[in-house]
Amino acid sequence: MTGVPFVKGHGTENDFVLIPDPDGILDLGPGAVAAICDRRAGLGADGVLRVVRAAKHPDGVAQAGEAEWFMDYRNADGSIAEMCGNGVRVFARYLVDAGLAGAGELPVATRIGVRRVRLGGTGEVTADMGPAVFTGPDGIEVALPDRPAGPGSWQGTAVSMGNPHAVVFVGDLAEAGTLDRPPLVRPAGAFPDGVNVEFVVARGPAHIALRVHERGSGETRSCGTGACAAMAVAARRDAAPAGTAYAVDVPGGRLTVTERPDGHLELTGPAVLVAAGRLREDWLGRSR
Amino acid sequence: MTGVPFVKGHGTENDFVLIPDPDGILDLGPGAVAAICDRRAGLGADGVLRVVRAAKHPDGVAQAGEAEWFMDYRNADGSIAEMCGNGVRVFARYLVDAGLAGAGELPVATRIGVRRVRLGGTGEVTADMGPAVFTGPDGIEVALPDRPAGPGSWQGTAVSMGNPHAVVFVGDLAEAGTLDRPPLVRPAGAFPDGVNVEFVVARGPAHIALRVHERGSGETRSCGTGACAAMAVAARRDAAPAGTAYAVDVPGGRLTVTERPDGHLELTGPAVLVAAGRLREDWLGRSR
Repeated sequence: MTGVPFVKGHGTENDFVLIPDPDGILDLGPGAVAAICDRRAGLGADGVLRVVRAAKHPDGVAQAGEAEWFMDYRNADGSIAEMCGNGVRVFARYLVDAGLAGAGELPVATRIGVRRVRLGGTGEVTADMGPAVFTGPDGIEVALPDRPAGPGSWQGTAVSMGNPHAVVFVGDLAEAGTLDRPPLVRPAGAFPDGVNVEFVVARGPAHIALRVHERGSGETRSCGTGACAAMAVAARRDAAPAGTAYAVDVPGGRLTVTERPDGHLELTGPAVLVAAGRLREDWLGRSR
Repeated sequence: MTGVPFVKGHGTENDFVLIPDPDGILDLGPGAVAAICDRRAGLGADGVLRVVRAAKHPDGVAQAGEAEWFMDYRNADGSIAEMCGNGVRVFARYLVDAGLAGAGELPVATRIGVRRVRLGGTGEVTADMGPAVFTGPDGIEVALPDRPAGPGSWQGTAVSMGNPHAVVFVGDLAEAGTLDRPPLVRPAGAFPDGVNVEFVVARGPAHIALRVHERGSGETRSCGTGACAAMAVAARRDAAPAGTAYAVDVPGGRLTVTERPDGHLELTGPAVLVAAGRLREDWLGRSR
């Protein structure tokens, strides 16, 4: 069978097409990525994870001494993205499954530096997501576009996980409505590059649930950095001791977030490989 | 590579996972089909087309003298479906591509009998869809659930292509709104098994465009029987001579429908194979 090899996988229903390209020789432009991610005319995914040797990718070569593999992550529209918490977990699962890395802990080069990922014996995969940073300003306000004031607006907390988040606690996840449009976040200008918004409810001790609106994507089934940002706010609110493992329910499943003694958050959850095969050359050729 | 073989393809963005199972030995229950068609946790498709020798399938064996291959079509929820106009075109494309049938015209066994399909030299695939039957009653009325009367309600025509359709002409496809809920069709009881509703505009001579709400699925990118039903109503309205080829634009592309001298409608359009591979046994095993 000829064509470009691929693997399809997901972490809490955040799904990816992995393209093994160890020597970084594939011509995989934005048009081809968008065609691959098209859920009707292509294979369908939230993004593409190209698997390239760090030494063979311009954004990975500086990390090649620390990590053999670079995660070249692209959004479904073909644009380049820095990092993806569920993506790096699925990426590590693939490396071990394909025999490209040994089990246990492994380093993955990404556009925000080397991330360490650990495969457990139970099928769960854990990624070091770095520290949560409370960036301020205080007094963030989140509102729904069809209810700009009063019921349907909440006080929130600004958190950076490398990307920006606004976290609000609500009484019930249904209060966030359809999330078919971006929530309003004030003060204007607090997030010049846009913001991901997490609506969070407490479910019990060290147990939260959330829905997330991702900038540029809308509501998604799961967001790894969003789960970490929400856990950071919940743990501060609960005055939870470091090391407390929070269960974070997302629409696509359950993640666990734990703060390490050094302040880094670890994101744990399933990382599932579904299928493998080849994209037809005649089809991909028309999409480039 | 182990696992269950599959091919992914689409016709005007009506997409399918084909599962070659010549001897009909796969245990492919509703749970497995639904898991395969899940667009996040699985591979993702509108339906599964299992490729079984007619002699090896209980619903195909009576047709085995006429057609070698039976199209075992399942909806995305795992339920069994009779027929799919785009599906049978992709099915034929696969048979020829895989060397299971010669080019030219070939018969395909389906749950509503043998359908003849023809592969052209241009990549287009044509399926004999049988005749359109104007079933009545006259005076069908279609309305939108949020505008049950007045603007947003139309007089329609009831057509059977083996499955039931209500066809209405509108001034602009946007008049049909979001189509996030089934349109209301009166008189109540005219369609005891539900109905597919086509909203149609004239684009020029022998050229229409439509949006379709499929019973059980909601708005889709394309519907082969819906394109045929809409063409039949348009051709009658236009008093078009038999043999007139109608261009039918659907959200996922362009189909062509032509009435043969014997009254059968022929549906022509692209049938594209995207990728091929194997579903992992460990993944499928958990889904059964």
